[in-house]
Order: sequence, then structure tokens, then C-alpha cells
Amino acid sequence: MSVVQYAPFASLVDPGFWHKLSAKKLDEYGLDDSARCINGFYTNGSAAGIAPFMTVDHSAFASEWAPPARSFAANGVLYIINTIDKFKEMDKKALLTAESNKLWENIKTGAVLENPEKLCPFLLLTFADLKKYHFYYWFAFPALKFPEKPTSFTEPPVTLQQKISETELTGLLSAYDAFQRSKDTFSAFFLVKQIGDCFVVDSFSNVDKALLSNDTVMVGVCDPSSASGNPGWPVRNLLSFLTYRFNGRLKTVTVLCVRDRTQDGVRDFGNSLVFSVELIPQDESALAILPDCVGWEKNERQKMGPRMVNLSSCMDPTRLAESAVDLNLKLMRWRLLPDLQLEKIAATRCLVLGSGTLGCNVARLLMGWGMRHITMVDNSKVSYSNPVRQSLFTFEHCLEGGQPKAQAAANSLRTIFPGMKSEGISLSIPMPGHTITDSMVQQTKNDVQQLEKLIEDHDAIFLLMDTRESRWLPSLIAASKKKIVINAALGFDTFLVLRHGVKKDQESADVVNPVKTSCIPGCQLGCYFCNDVVAPGNSTRDRTLDQQCTVTRPGLSMVASALAVELLVSVLQHPLGGEAPADTSANDDHFLVDSECSLGVVPHQIRGFLSRFHQILPASQAFSMCTACCPLVLQKYRMEGFNFLLKAFNEAGYLEQITGLAAMQDATLDAEVWDLSDDDDLSMEIS
Amino acid sequence: MSVVQYAPFASLVDPGFWHKLSAKKLDEYGLDDSARCINGFYTNGSAAGIAPFMTVDHSAFASEWAPPARSFAANGVLYIINTIDKFKEMDKKALLTAESNKLWENIKTGAVLENPEKLCPFLLLTFADLKKYHFYYWFAFPALKFPEKPTSFTEPPVTLQQKISETELTGLLSAYDAFQRSKDTFSAFFLVKQIGDCFVVDSFSNVDKALLSNDTVMVGVCDPSSASGNPGWPVRNLLSFLTYRFNGRLKTVTVLCVRDRTQDGVRDFGNSLVFSVELIPQDESALAILPDCVGWEKNERQKMGPRMVNLSSCMDPTRLAESAVDLNLKLMRWRLLPDLQLEKIAATRCLVLGSGTLGCNVARLLMGWGMRHITMVDNSKVSYSNPVRQSLFTFEHCLEGGQPKAQAAANSLRTIFPGMKSEGISLSIPMPGHTITDSMVQQTKNDVQQLEKLIEDHDAIFLLMDTRESRWLPSLIAASKKKIVINAALGFDTFLVLRHGVKKDQESADVVNPVKTSCIPGCQLGCYFCNDVVAPGNSTRDRTLDQQCTVTRPGLSMVASALAVELLVSVLQHPLGGEAPADTSANDDHFLVDSECSLGVVPHQIRGFLSRFHQILPASQAFSMCTACCPLVLQKYRMEGFNFLLKAFNEAGYLEQITGLAAMQDATLDAEVWDLSDDDDLSMEIS
Repeated sequence: MSVVQYAPFASLVDPGFWHKLSAKKLDEYGLDDSARCINGFYTNGSAAGIAPFMTVDHSAFASEWAPPARSFAANGVLYIINTIDKFKEMDKKALLTAESNKLWENIKTGAVLENPEKLCPFLLLTFADLKKYHFYYWFAFPALKFPEKPTSFTEPPVTLQQKISETELTGLLSAYDAFQRSKDTFSAFFLVKQIGDCFVVDSFSNVDKALLSNDTVMVGVCDPSSASGNPGWPVRNLLSFLTYRFNGRLKTVTVLCVRDRTQDGVRDFGNSLVFSVELIPQDESALAILPDCVGWEKNERQKMGPRMVNLSSCMDPTRLAESAVDLNLKLMRWRLLPDLQLEKIAATRCLVLGSGTLGCNVARLLMGWGMRHITMVDNSKVSYSNPVRQSLFTFEHCLEGGQPKAQAAANSLRTIFPGMKSEGISLSIPMPGHTITDSMVQQTKNDVQQLEKLIEDHDAIFLLMDTRESRWLPSLIAASKKKIVINAALGFDTFLVLRHGVKKDQESADVVNPVKTSCIPGCQLGCYFCNDVVAPGNSTRDRTLDQQCTVTRPGLSMVASALAVELLVSVLQHPLGGEAPADTSANDDHFLVDSECSLGVVPHQIRGFLSRFHQILPASQAFSMCTACCPLVLQKYRMEGFNFLLKAFNEAGYLEQITGLAAMQDATLDAEVWDLSDDDDLSMEIS
Repeated sequence: MSVVQYAPFASLVDPGFWHKLSAKKLDEYGLDDSARCINGFYTNGSAAGIAPFMTVDHSAFASEWAPPARSFAANGVLYIINTIDKFKEMDKKALLTAESNKLWENIKTGAVLENPEKLCPFLLLTFADLKKYHFYYWFAFPALKFPEKPTSFTEPPVTLQQKISETELTGLLSAYDAFQRSKDTFSAFFLVKQIGDCFVVDSFSNVDKALLSNDTVMVGVCDPSSASGNPGWPVRNLLSFLTYRFNGRLKTVTVLCVRDRTQDGVRDFGNSLVFSVELIPQDESALAILPDCVGWEKNERQKMGPRMVNLSSCMDPTRLAESAVDLNLKLMRWRLLPDLQLEKIAATRCLVLGSGTLGCNVARLLMGWGMRHITMVDNSKVSYSNPVRQSLFTFEHCLEGGQPKAQAAANSLRTIFPGMKSEGISLSIPMPGHTITDSMVQQTKNDVQQLEKLIEDHDAIFLLMDTRESRWLPSLIAASKKKIVINAALGFDTFLVLRHGVKKDQESADVVNPVKTSCIPGCQLGCYFCNDVVAPGNSTRDRTLDQQCTVTRPGLSMVASALAVELLVSVLQHPLGGEAPADTSANDDHFLVDSECSLGVVPHQIRGFLSRFHQILPASQAFSMCTACCPLVLQKYRMEGFNFLLKAFNEAGYLEQITGLAAMQDATLDAEVWDLSDDDDLSMEIS
């Protein structure tokens, strides 16, 4: 009698599986490398010569899942190991034993009667190098060496065609189809009872009664193998089960390996195999211990070892870049910041006003944090001195008079990362003190409207221009629209990074409440103009070259840009967002306070002094006479619109007048004179 | 009698003049806008129809200067105004009056007798927009309205040819040539005495005697005018001088306007003009007051107003870029840092080890500071996740497996600024703990030699790699070669920037001297490994993905890179360079100490904490058992060379053993056990 030899499963991994695995690893599992249940499937319709594939694809991770039509489910266990070394060092024997133990339990308890797919477990050990898109993997299809002695045929395999008549074949086929149709998903194990010329197909759960009756019963298996003399791997564990279950009560069993091919458009059911095997009786002692187990798949080189697939070259470069770029960010969540809300950051639309040294660096960092929607604004062209300091420009941008800065910067963002939704807008921002002549009024009106629309359409506004007065209009509009504003300004070796307060909806013209704690609520924080007692005016008139060029130590812009972006991200991560409070304590106490933001403290201002490599974090309240954000100015802007703005642009002293700043300045001047006592040195200058 | 009408000078500015002016302004004058003496010249050889040009070129600023051959000197006064507004607002009348006053003084004192070129002064008012290469300028050629009544011809102009015979012309020409040859530079004013057929040419200083004699004397002027009836501008002030000088003593004077053309290769002296004019007697009162003055040049539109020349398009873009790039740096010196040694910075050759986020940003900033010689080193290729954080790479660099990082970075530096001397080197730095097998020994030896040569050939070494152990070999080599080393390393939201101590030449194996003040001398400062009590080993083995990627908040790299570069620049500006001391006081005292460096304090370390937007400046001494810089290790490296290194790479614990670290660790462990008293909680872990 010849020994039964089984055709082992061959693994087939769809690239979609690796995509899904990468995403799951990054978004969900992180460093957790514990076992995961996954879905696999196989078919019994392979043409001759085709290996019996066990397939995993993108659906492998689904919890509610059914195999594809005419396919059969298999239960898998997936391990994603964190390092290549640990992957190599994994105890393969122990892993397999763990799976065979489960299988053995399922056999002993009879759990396979209701869920016969438990006879087809598999195990998948992986290491995913997500930087290179190299995936290492090793499948095992656990099979028990039970009985220990190989099983032999009592009747060698023949095809159904050889075994039964054409009519019987047709009857069997329609009984089989009726059975499968009655199920939600196709069942790979079943029973076939022959009554005269007729066949009845029944559930595998009735195997006890069926096999112990005197009827002619075959155990049906949907067989992935296409080899003429070899049944597939599912038959192996099936015979282990039958050996255990009917130990001594049954000598032989007939197996029908259903091979449901279609050849040249015609269904070819007749190629299914029929054979009988002995069921070797076992000692009680053999039943009590866990049988040995085999099943690790050989690799392409027919060695016991893992396989590797390199998907870097066959993936679309743009999509490759997209997932690679997200990788570094998602990695933050794994160990360091599980609460990091990357989606919130990624969804933030940023408006960058000013595309110079600060604007370029800020845009780069926003991109680094995963922001994809960035709009650059500027009104000048790239000049020869720009590229060495303005990190989105090259020499090419300077030629032939220079490209418009905003567009050049937006284009560069896409050359760095094609997934960017970046746009560049050439726009001059109207400013107080820069007179609008009659001929310019319409253009200015259009510019204001465009700026209003831009601020409306974005979530965070960066003020990175090179003059003070150009920040006034966007400060006002953004305050009115309650947007997050981050302001950065450079001196020669000092900088200021500041977030504007975001007013509450129920805004009143009353004075702000006295601060009770050492924290200022976000809605009461000052804006860039709140510390000033003069309104913005034309600061570019009559400036010397060193003032026009905003001469700064080159490192300063990177520091200020970085802190500006990190401040925005901290604000976004704080549960209160733009209304996050800021600490006012001058000492380092607030370093000890647990911030509600997972990234740390969310200061109001960061002032830096490069000559001392020093930074301080002042916080200050909104000023009730601020020319850009006080209730009166906001109200006038809302009521009078462009007419109000035009007055602010054209009339020197107008903003001081309406806010009361002018009166305050006068009063202060008076006070300074009268406050002089006899002890004061009158030779000192008064003003 | 017809009135004499003079052909005014027409200004001609060679582009070389603007180049020189830009350089002078940036390098020498800065914001000082006081009057400067410059040189101009004109010729009397212009063909008919050519304007009487007064030329200024690159030589205008020379102090030792002579006009070109056959040209005549003019003394100019240059104003370079700092802003366009001030340029517009300059009091033109006052400027011209100031010059005419000088001219009048020179006439009254007779200073023009010895220096008749003082009769041709000019004034040049400029504003140079050095960012756009737009030059605004306005010439004045001061001429006195003296006598107030226009001078008239008594004998109208005829050519010499018409006036004298061919023989006489030849005689006059040779006398003229002999006279000019006797001078160092051609003289534009002289006397011509006719004695029979002969002519004698004499110095202008003898004008009194000559004109008051009874001889036939002509006053000779080299005449820039080519108009047949109009003498040139120099004649105008000449006649003012003669009117003043011979007031009432001389009724008329004959003027010879020498026009020394060459036509079709033949010298054409005969076209010179001869004419006589009246010298109108003046009242004493007229002699006592400053006459009115004219002379501002009309512009191209025949209006009184400035001209503008835009040189941005006709200059070589690469050179344009070079000067534009230097502009921002030079501007620093004008107002803020007159002592800034830009040349020292520019001459510093920088080796950047590691071309990742830190390397790219550091290289950009070095370029921003004017460094031109930057060598990038790395051993990996640009991958898809790199460009959004590594600021010298774009999506293009990632395609087809990725370009080598070092070369791609070096190339990008040149696309930003073509003047860069940047090179990229693919090199793997051997590391302790990364075993060198026999087959790798030769390659490793080559790598070590290449690294030694690179460090030898550069002045400042940046250590910006992503592992600790890869910093060991360059730390050791640089310490041995006494190079400046700047080290930067990133955590998730913390960073370290540190300069290594630069050992003194007379190095001894003795322990370092106890520190007497709160300052540690630069030669006693620690290196990156001085704070460690374990030798570097393989830290990449078995790291998870988040550890391999050096996951950091995106802003961190820009901050650390900026501070690393600013620290280097501060070191370079300190009189002691790498030996600059560092303050150890933990409080803020050192902020008040005046640093010897014009840029501010020069700390040893900057440690930053982004979660608190905070930085501290610790300083620490070199450690006598440091595995990278202690005298014993340096000595072994110098004596045993590669063999020593090989042991360090291959033998775990070798460096700990030879430095005594191992013994210290053991002793410490013992001490920790024995130091436990009864009060200690013994349940705590000991190690």
C-alpha cells in the first residue's frame, strides 16, 4: 500500500496586503508585535500544474470578512516583528507548536465539526522595513504528524470520471452546488452520501452519524491541489481529525477531493479525486500528548527560510513619497506621543504671508509636520541675494529679473513633495501710512477682498513680512474671523515669535476681566500690536540699505521659523486650540506645570537673544486700545468695512484717535512733565 | 558782437565705475555719506558731432592717479546718498554753491595758476540701490556766472587752419607736443606766444606776465567741444578767471581751443578754434561777492533731473549673485558689527559629516554666512521620506533608487549659489562595535585615510551623523589635528549642540589644571564623549523603526542646525578661536559678562528642550579617561595608527580597558554597594 503524500500550500501575497500591513503597522499597531488574526483563502479550481496557493490580500485584516467567490476561508495568525534581528531570532519551533496546540485542541474538542476551516490554520511571520519597502516574511501551514505512522491508501486515487458514470457525476454536481448555495460562504468540508444513483451532500458536522452508519459516505474536501496523485494540505489535518475521532471505530474512510475547475469555459468536475485510506488505531497514550508538527514553507531557493519582496521599485513614486513622508510623523505616535493628533495637523490649511527667509523655512517645516495645504503670499520677485537664505529658491529663480516669490516658493514645495497642495499668490497688502491715491482705490479694494478671502479659507495665518505695518491688516482681519495667527519677526540677533489671542464668540466691548490666576486665557492674549502705543505707519520710507534688507544673523530665521511652526503645532494639539491659556509667571515655575498639550507648554510669546543663546516666554494681555484687535476697531471694521480701512491707510493719526491712544499719549506726556520733582535731574531729556 | 555760448560737458559713466562704487560703499564707506574726492577726465580729440564727455570709470576712486593718455584730469566730488528719498530731497542749489564757492576761492587766490584743472570741477550725486543694481545719479559741472553780463566775441571763432599758414601750424603743433611731453600728465591749460613764424608754448602759471606783455599771446585750452562755433565748458571758467585776474587791465584776450583729433589716421590739429573775447571790467562790489553758478546736467529727457542706469541685466548672473550674496553680510558691518571679520568666516573650510536633516540645514546656513568651501559626507542615498525634512533634496533626488546623499547635497548647494566650492563624498565612517572582518580591512584602512585627509584639509568639522559611535573616529582624528569640532545631536524634542575643546600644542598626559575661575579654557573643554562612562558601541543593532529614523519634531533640526552654525561663527570671531573659554556658572551671570567676541557669549554646550521652549548653556571639562580625546588615546592613535583603530573597532571593551574606564566602572559599582546604609531602601535596584 502506498503512503499518502500531500501537496503543501504555496503562499501567494498580493501587494495590496503589504500596503495594508504598512498602514496598519503605522496607524494602529505601532510597536505592538503581538499576534494578530488575519484572513487567508484558497481555491479548488486551479488548473493542472498550478500550485495550491494560499492567498492573503488587502482584505486580510478585515474583521467582517468573507472569502472571494468559489474560495475557502483560512484562519491565519500574523506576527509583525519590529527589527530584522528579532525576526531572525524568533523561535520558529515554538511559534509552530503554539499553533499546532490550538489545532490539536480544536480536533480533540470537536470544534472543527462546526468550523471545519479550523483545519486550515496558517501562520505568517513578517518584518516590514517601511523605509525601504522591503518586506520579509515566512509562512507556516501547521500540519500534525498524527498518526505518527504515515497514512496509506487502501484504494489509490482515481478521478470521479473514472469512478462514477456521467449521470451520477451530473447528479453529484447538482447536489454539491445546492449544498454550497445553501451556505453563506462556500464550505470546504462536507459529507457525500450515495443513495443508489443519487447523491446527498450534507454538513461536515454530521460526520459521526454518517460515517458510523452503513451508508456509502465519502468525506468531501475542496482540494487546492491539482496534482493527479496527491491530495492537498487540508486533507492532511482532516485525516488527523478522523483518526482521532474514530479511533478504532472505523478502519477506512473514503475521501472525495473536489476539484472544481473550469477548462475552456466548461466546468470540469470530473477531475476530482476519490480515494480511500486506512485509519490507523492509536494507543490512549498517543492521544494524550501533542503530536509533532510540520509546516514552515520553503522559500524560492527551496530552503527553509524567509522570503523577501522589494516593493520600492514597483510602487508609484509619488505614492511612495506620500507614505514615506507620513512615516516619520506616524512613528512619533508609536513610543513617544500616542495622543498626537496628526490628522488635525494634516488638515490645517496654512496661509503664509511673506515668502522670504521666514516664509520659506516656515513652509518647509509645515510640510515636515504633514501639512499639505499651504498658500504662499508675497509681492516681490526672487533676487540674487535671496537663495542662500530663503530656502525655497535657487539661482534659476533669479534669472531674467526673478520669478515672483510666492509662486516660486509654492512650486518648490511641489518639487520637494509632489503631494503638496501649494499655491502662490502675488499680492500687495495695503498698509497704514502708505497712502492710497484715488487711482489706486479700486485695486486696493480688490487686494483687501482677496486677503479677506484668503484668511477666511485658511485655518492658521503666519505673519512673516518684513515690515511692521504690513501686519496690521491681516492681524485685524484674522482677529475678526477668529483665526489662529502666528507672528514672527527678526532683529539682528533677536527674534519674537508670538501667537495672537483668539477672541471668544461672545465678544463685548467691556474691559477684559482681571486675571485671577497666573494664566491668561487664550481669548485675552495680546496681538502683535497690543504692546505698542503708536499705530503702524510707513517704516520703509527713508530707510538705509541695512534697514531694508532686515540684516540678521543667518541662523536666526531658522530658529524663529522652527519655533513659530512648533508653536502652531502645540496650539493645534492643545484641547482648547487657539484659546489655550498662556502662563505669565516670569520664573521657571511653569516648566513644572503639566501642560494639557502633549507636546509641552504653549507659550504666548517666545523672545530669543542669539548673542546669549537665550530664550524667554513672556505673556501679555490684549490691550484695550490696540489698533489692530481692540473691540472698537473690530466693530468699526465690521460696520464700515473698506471705508474704515481706507481712513486707516490714508489718515495719519486716525487709528490713534479712534482707539484713544492719542489721548493717552498726550496724558502720558503731561504726566511725565508734572511728575518731575525737585530731586529729578532736570537736565535729562523729558520725552 | 555775438555772445559766447559754451558746449556743456556731457557725463559718461563707465559700468566699471558703478562696480567700484558698489564695492567701496559696501567695504569702505558703509553709511558714511560725506563728500568723496574722485577723478574724472575728458579728451579734446572728439570727432565732429560727438558730445564733450566727462568720463568717470573704475579708476575714479584711485588716490594716486593720472588720466589716460591724451586725456585731461578733472576734480570731482562724489556724494553717495543712503536712501532714494534723501537723494531726492538733497538741496541741489546748496551743493552747487558749495562747489562754486571753492572754485571762486581758487580763482581769487590764484590757486588755479599752478593747478589750472581746478577750473574743471564736477560734482556727482548718487544713490545706489545695491539690491537691484539700479544707480541713480546726477552730475553738475559748476560754472560761475561771472561776469554777470554774457561775454561776447570780439573776433568770432575761426579754425587754426583759416588763421595761420600750414608752416605755422606745423611749428605750433611741434611746440605744443614738446610742451605736453615735458609734463608728467598733459596739461589742459597753457600759453601760446607767437614770435614771428615761431610758436612757444608755456605754462599757464605765467599768464600774468605773458598777457600783460606786448607779445602776441593766446591762452590755450584743450577743448572737449567739437562744435564749430562753441568752445567747451572749460573755457567758461577760464574766462571768469581772466576777467577777475585782469579786471580793467586787459580789454580782450585771444583763446586757442586746441582740438587734437585724428581723422582717417591723420592728426587734424588745424580744426582747433581761435577767437578773441572782451574782458568786461567789473566793479569792486562785483568782485567781493560769490557769483551765481550753473551746471546741473540735464537728463536724457532734456529735463533737469537725475539719470538712472539699471545694471542688473547686463551683469553676469553668477557674478551678480556673488555680490548680492555678500551684500547682506557686509551690511552687518555698517551699523551693527563694525568688527565682524567676514573674511575669516568666508575663508573657513567646512567639513560636514552627515548629510541628513542637520547636515542639509547646516550647509545652507554656512552658505548664508559666506562660507564657500563646504564638503558634504554621507554614505546613504536620498529616500522618499528625506526631502520634506532634509532641505537640500527634492523628489527628483529620490527616483531610481535615490542619488547618493553627499553628492546630491553638494550639487544642490551649487544650484542655490553657483559660486560654491562644494564637493560630496560617499564615505562610510568605521565605528567601534561594528566589526571589521578580514576581507574589509583594506577598505576600512582606505576609509580611515580618506577621513584623515578630509579632516586635515578643513578648518571646521561638523559631526551631524545619526549614531553616537560614528562620531568617535572623527572626534579622535580632529582632536589629534586640533581642529574646531561642532557636534549636534537630536532627541525627540531635545537637542545638544557642543563644541569640542581644542587641545593646546604643548599637550601633556598630566591631569588638567584645576579651574580657578568660573571659566574653562577652550583647551580644557570636553568633547562629545567626555561625559560618557561607556565607550561607543553598535547602537543600530536591533533598533525599532522609530529609533532608526531618529524621530524628532520637525522644528528641532532647524533650531539645532542654526545654533551649531552660529556657535561656529562665534568661535571664529573670538580672538582665541577654538581656545575661547566657556563660562560654567549655572545662573545667568555670564549673560552680563562682556564677551570678547563681538557676537556675544561663546558657550561650550547648548542644550535645548522644545517642550518648554527652553535652552541652557552647560560647560564641562575634558575627561581624563575619555575614549575619544584623552591624552592616552591620542598618543596611542599617533603611535599605533590604524592598528590601534582596528582594535577599537573590533574588540568590545578595548577602549574602556586602556582608558581605565572599565576599572572605574567596577570601582563605582563596588562603591555603590558599600555606600548603601541601613537607611537606604535595599529593595531598590543597585545598578
